[in-house]
Amino acid sequence: MKVLVINAGSSSLKYQLYDMRDESVLASGRVERIGMDSSIVTHEPAGKPEVRDVSEILEHVTAVKRVIDMLTHKEHGVIGSMNEIDAVGHRIVHGGEVFKSSVLVTQDVKLEIRRLFDLAPLHNPAHMMGITAVESNLPHVPQAVVFDTAFHQTMPNTSYLYPIPKVLYRRHKIRRYGFHGTSHSYVSGQAAAYLGMPLKSLKMVSCHIGNGASCAAILNGESFDTSMGMTPLEGLMMGTRSGDIDPAIVPFVMNKEELTLNEVNSMLNKHSGMIAISGISSDMREITEAMEDGDKNAKLAFDMYVYRLKKYIGAYAAAMNGIDTLVFTAGVGENSAAVRKAVCEGITFLGIELDDERNAIRSKEAREISKDSSRVKVLVVPTNEELLIARDTYELVKAAHSS
Amino acid sequence: MKVLVINAGSSSLKYQLYDMRDESVLASGRVERIGMDSSIVTHEPAGKPEVRDVSEILEHVTAVKRVIDMLTHKEHGVIGSMNEIDAVGHRIVHGGEVFKSSVLVTQDVKLEIRRLFDLAPLHNPAHMMGITAVESNLPHVPQAVVFDTAFHQTMPNTSYLYPIPKVLYRRHKIRRYGFHGTSHSYVSGQAAAYLGMPLKSLKMVSCHIGNGASCAAILNGESFDTSMGMTPLEGLMMGTRSGDIDPAIVPFVMNKEELTLNEVNSMLNKHSGMIAISGISSDMREITEAMEDGDKNAKLAFDMYVYRLKKYIGAYAAAMNGIDTLVFTAGVGENSAAVRKAVCEGITFLGIELDDERNAIRSKEAREISKDSSRVKVLVVPTNEELLIARDTYELVKAAHSS
Repeated sequence: MKVLVINAGSSSLKYQLYDMRDESVLASGRVERIGMDSSIVTHEPAGKPEVRDVSEILEHVTAVKRVIDMLTHKEHGVIGSMNEIDAVGHRIVHGGEVFKSSVLVTQDVKLEIRRLFDLAPLHNPAHMMGITAVESNLPHVPQAVVFDTAFHQTMPNTSYLYPIPKVLYRRHKIRRYGFHGTSHSYVSGQAAAYLGMPLKSLKMVSCHIGNGASCAAILNGESFDTSMGMTPLEGLMMGTRSGDIDPAIVPFVMNKEELTLNEVNSMLNKHSGMIAISGISSDMREITEAMEDGDKNAKLAFDMYVYRLKKYIGAYAAAMNGIDTLVFTAGVGENSAAVRKAVCEGITFLGIELDDERNAIRSKEAREISKDSSRVKVLVVPTNEELLIARDTYELVKAAHSS
Repeated sequence: MKVLVINAGSSSLKYQLYDMRDESVLASGRVERIGMDSSIVTHEPAGKPEVRDVSEILEHVTAVKRVIDMLTHKEHGVIGSMNEIDAVGHRIVHGGEVFKSSVLVTQDVKLEIRRLFDLAPLHNPAHMMGITAVESNLPHVPQAVVFDTAFHQTMPNTSYLYPIPKVLYRRHKIRRYGFHGTSHSYVSGQAAAYLGMPLKSLKMVSCHIGNGASCAAILNGESFDTSMGMTPLEGLMMGTRSGDIDPAIVPFVMNKEELTLNEVNSMLNKHSGMIAISGISSDMREITEAMEDGDKNAKLAFDMYVYRLKKYIGAYAAAMNGIDTLVFTAGVGENSAAVRKAVCEGITFLGIELDDERNAIRSKEAREISKDSSRVKVLVVPTNEELLIARDTYELVKAAHSS
């Protein structure tokens, strides 16, 4: 079975085509600048050179058509015809309280995703455009949706409720949802497999730290708490997002700077975090380089990032009354030995002993970076959300066929 | 030397008169409903019956006059004349970045307190009315000001800066200040004395949990981090304050419910926290009783309160790379054995062993509630902010006299 994975944004669409027999990626790529007259399709077929094509792509139906054209292209293609695409899996940011796992797309499912537009106004409408664009192009192909929030639906209400008037939960579903669930789920499973331990036996803190960043406390194999909240703004300091601040700062700044609701949202989501403190970049690589060159603001941004991450790891250790596994993943987590070192050296009291040599090794494989004597096992596990989407889609379609 | 301690609010004024020879309280009391025609003065002279007097008190000058009348009253009084008041100490909520310790009141000091009105619009103007009212009534008596924020001025910038555009710090001084500093300072000193250890040698988390609530990480005898932020809204779940929430909830709710800046502030400060979740009360005693009677919302409020407190203790243990002393103080901390038990039993991994019998004892003295074998010492230390204000005032006036 071949599964096409799609992550549709409002002006972009990323894709991977998987052969599920060996979970190999036949091709991947992205469409950028949808809605403009110079949209770019970048197509990377396995074992063949990358192709770029610039043309006018005004909406998502055309974008999906171009993807299919690329996948079936006689030169750059990897399949003979679009009939070889057996299923399509979509990444959906917000599944609200309705979706506790991945599901096949039905009319009801589409209706529910629409109902969640309010909670994820930037993401869910774009995902829906991806779904309908696939329907137009591949009307008989089953589709599945995989939610960033679903893994965290196991959180107890003490984790997911906010101490605010209850009417806000009843009326607007304001609660902690958490995001990066696909990643936290994937790397927690990989970590347990690496350790040769049942996932259910572990008290794990998973740190998905990329441009967006979140921690999850994973207990009995389930998400017990996570740092992102109703939106991806809460929690850790991120590339351009503030993470946790005194909520009273929001009305204070709106008043002082005469900001609208959109402007304050934009300030906290796009102009805060690492970029605001470093004044240099939202990218940890550039910040680390500047820090090594003696830049004080870069050093401050790095230190704040590490400090806030340490506090979350400590908080989640307290949430679970202990920790035995700490996992780093995503861009920063997989690649920044400096961040991992600074974090781990600051929380040795938890029973963490970092092995500097192991930490310095670069690899695309899951690996331990703690010493053999370390009570808490520290792992780097490369995440692969697309693969998990492909797997969930494959399993759902297979189950539907056999039932 | 006799020191009058004053805590002036916008419509209330609390006072204590200390004899600094033995730090005894000669009298205490409060003026309520200032600005109304039926203001109430409640006066409690040591060793004499409480007196209540209802009259019109329209502003703070008259309120202070009534206090002096009570203190010098031939029947209810405790001093022969107002000349016996050697100094007055005021509690000031916000000292900004200027005041790192208590100071004597001068024209410059008053100017600085006025400059901080923006950061504490509900509190500092009322405190200033208290200062000028004392000037009117006792023009030759030296006054000192003791700030809730001063103890936390030792925090490193990694603790006090928020990951938001730096211009907000430069222009509006938006940063973490922290509050309850007088209490955290007092109980940390008392705890070290109780343990017979130098305060500087301890890694302490101090939990001031009353109707307002904050934690402090105290390292080398200094505040290293604290849960309240630019305002007292951030941090722990409180009686009527939310504490930490996704900051994106603020604009979201403002939009959905069409709230003004004042309304959303009021919602988060006055209608959230324990009262919102329990639906019963902001008072932990009433919530605990309802919980014991089987009320599910009370149980949920209690559990959320404990859970969020545990996470802060874990976070601050991580901030200091360990913890050896945990202190509970203020209304809930001193009186709720149930909260202390629920917290401590959830974080035994830190090396905390609660002694249930010790925890159940009610006392007004500092006491240990952990087992002798507990690696982390857990103490209950009754707070006494007024005494610390009296001491600081006494020391400042004494030093001024001798210099």
